[in-house]
Amino acid sequence: MKKCQLTLLNFSAKFSEQMKSILPLLQNAKKASSQIALLSNEERTSLVLDIAQALLENEELIVQANKIDADKMEDTDPKKDRLMLDRERIAGSASDSKNVANLSDPIGIVQTERVLENNIQLQKIAVPLGVVGVIYESRPNVTVDVAVLALKSGNAVILRGGSDAEHSNKAIVKIIHEALKQHNLSPDIVQLLPTDRAFVKELLEAEKYVDIIIPRGSANLIQFVRENSKIPTIETGAGVCHTFVEKIADLEKARNIVSNAKLQRPSVCNSLDTIIVQEDICDSFLPMIIEAFEKKHVEIFADEKAYNVLQNAQYPHLHKATEEDFGREFLSFACSIKVVQSFVEAVNHIAQYSSKHSEAIVSEDKNLCERFLQEVDAAAVYSNASTRFTDGGVFGLGAEIGISTQKLHARGPFALEKLVTEKWVLRGDGQVRE
Amino acid sequence: MKKCQLTLLNFSAKFSEQMKSILPLLQNAKKASSQIALLSNEERTSLVLDIAQALLENEELIVQANKIDADKMEDTDPKKDRLMLDRERIAGSASDSKNVANLSDPIGIVQTERVLENNIQLQKIAVPLGVVGVIYESRPNVTVDVAVLALKSGNAVILRGGSDAEHSNKAIVKIIHEALKQHNLSPDIVQLLPTDRAFVKELLEAEKYVDIIIPRGSANLIQFVRENSKIPTIETGAGVCHTFVEKIADLEKARNIVSNAKLQRPSVCNSLDTIIVQEDICDSFLPMIIEAFEKKHVEIFADEKAYNVLQNAQYPHLHKATEEDFGREFLSFACSIKVVQSFVEAVNHIAQYSSKHSEAIVSEDKNLCERFLQEVDAAAVYSNASTRFTDGGVFGLGAEIGISTQKLHARGPFALEKLVTEKWVLRGDGQVRE
Repeated sequence: MKKCQLTLLNFSAKFSEQMKSILPLLQNAKKASSQIALLSNEERTSLVLDIAQALLENEELIVQANKIDADKMEDTDPKKDRLMLDRERIAGSASDSKNVANLSDPIGIVQTERVLENNIQLQKIAVPLGVVGVIYESRPNVTVDVAVLALKSGNAVILRGGSDAEHSNKAIVKIIHEALKQHNLSPDIVQLLPTDRAFVKELLEAEKYVDIIIPRGSANLIQFVRENSKIPTIETGAGVCHTFVEKIADLEKARNIVSNAKLQRPSVCNSLDTIIVQEDICDSFLPMIIEAFEKKHVEIFADEKAYNVLQNAQYPHLHKATEEDFGREFLSFACSIKVVQSFVEAVNHIAQYSSKHSEAIVSEDKNLCERFLQEVDAAAVYSNASTRFTDGGVFGLGAEIGISTQKLHARGPFALEKLVTEKWVLRGDGQVRE
Repeated sequence: MKKCQLTLLNFSAKFSEQMKSILPLLQNAKKASSQIALLSNEERTSLVLDIAQALLENEELIVQANKIDADKMEDTDPKKDRLMLDRERIAGSASDSKNVANLSDPIGIVQTERVLENNIQLQKIAVPLGVVGVIYESRPNVTVDVAVLALKSGNAVILRGGSDAEHSNKAIVKIIHEALKQHNLSPDIVQLLPTDRAFVKELLEAEKYVDIIIPRGSANLIQFVRENSKIPTIETGAGVCHTFVEKIADLEKARNIVSNAKLQRPSVCNSLDTIIVQEDICDSFLPMIIEAFEKKHVEIFADEKAYNVLQNAQYPHLHKATEEDFGREFLSFACSIKVVQSFVEAVNHIAQYSSKHSEAIVSEDKNLCERFLQEVDAAAVYSNASTRFTDGGVFGLGAEIGISTQKLHARGPFALEKLVTEKWVLRGDGQVRE
């Protein structure tokens, strides 16, 4: 590909401050979607590889734009780390994009094939969705991930990133647009929306132009999308995750698993929110977690029995749990503890409070573990492992779009092969129905 | 199974006229759903076979209840035929149910299996959705179809049938409840909702208890569900279907296909709504359809060119098409005709007006047919065959739940194997994330 000659000067945003409606942008994306849908796998692969290369060649531009965004955010803001793009992160994004380019083609796979009695040839094949809309928050590397996954799977994409990352996103999309042009494709295939909140509502009602909406971000964002979208949606994100330490658990394993699930990266959706402990081992197990939890100043919201045990053990950051502390996604160094009498009580507690994301049991009773894996309704269920593993990369999917907490189309970590729909193709020779 | 001793006398409806909320019913269904989810395939098969048998043994009861519904409907109402249940139709439903019972089990299928680097065993398996809600209109045989498909796939089901069929549906569900009880299962697994309209809204907001909503029926119903559901939905039904007669079509085939698509059963979603004719063959082709169309008094809404041809040919039921006649689902002996200059104009017309259900081309140009099959975005695309074939039974799926016109999870005719979701199961031995 010809090297892009981009500077911050030619950042003429495609939308003006006075834009009244995003519908024309969405219409253009719909029109342009057939261009990308009809490309061969080789052409889509080449496009994505060229985007990866262009990101590297224009890294200075991205870093400059990102600095404008970063300067507007307080250094103490916990989102700042996620906003930052340096050379290393850009190289990581480019490398991930190359990996996506080389994934096997999800399009055109024949899922069903048969000849009907009347001799019509019937096939069900995988085809692109059309226009994929993604609403996300501060991380600008999501812009790259989502765009290349959409393009590799033959889809146009509507990107609605957060205002925090506006300049970074514009720089990235500008680079992608140049790559599209060099492949004689319309830049309308990748649209970055203005960040005005009113346009989110308009997007969610544009079922004529957008085929699917994927919200990635806070529980509030996801709830807003659920309540307002007329477009089929794949919900992602919210994880209220339990780990149940059963009475014949190996307590060393339990300590490692619980500590990892809570402490390794508490800001993510697959981190632990509630420890469930069977009463029989409450006195022996709970004191075992104190050392690691105290180091990280973990706030513990404990039910009465756990409170007594931890108070006796002089745990400093201890609170009496209220009803609101169960079913709560903490996303920080905090968790709740529930003591149960039985396996059934544990499973019922999870059924009541879980967001059906990731749930684990720690036990040496293999049969009980199997019952847990079967009876607990969640995207990912674990025996004797940390819930932190719920991730597209870890599961072997390549780059992930998100982690679905709903049951239609995609559940748990999902990636390229879920950015498709089906089409029934029937070839006849004049057949009519009797 | 012990023979049911049911009479109309023990039709004590489970809900009283004063019911204020259906939430308790939905909660009960959710609670009971784990009972059916945990049954083996043998147990689910046996249950469905017993339901089929009980329908036959209690056919008199169903016929009597159906008579109460039928007597309330005017004989001239076109819905009356769809409401009627006689011995033959009940035998048909029982036979269909037996077929469903013997379909291969969609549950427990391992879709992905691998051992991760850290030795965790990973599987993705098919599991029941949980609670399936179906909102439908006057045909009471849908009650049987949906209930047995849900039970065979390990799901609880919420049935919201139309008020026209209230007594028929109550009789059928009563019989199903008796079968559930004889299998020591809770009748809460199959819930028939009262028909008050306010409860539909309540159902659509009960995302905590219902996992999926499937509306079957009129465009109005589907739009209401799309705009009000907080629960993931599979839309079914509306079909604005085109047949494009291309300039080198075999005109005899074209006549047969167009006539079949419009005349064989115009009240269904896969029937023809708009004929698109390439201008070159307008004069030769359009007069060919007159004889068959005139016999059925088909109202034709023709654009200017088609109008002139048909007026010259003295077609009697002729109207000048307005913009509203394109993209209109007629569901009766009526259609519109559009004359186009080119293949591209035809494909663009379809893109603008289609509901993405079933679309056909008639042409002897194989390459052009392939372009049509690839470029037209619809659940089912045909070359040289009638769109009337879009049907789960015809496609070889067994009993169908409906025909999806959306792109997520299921597209086109869908059946048993789409009443499942996925679950990632991970078996470890103490693994934690680095």
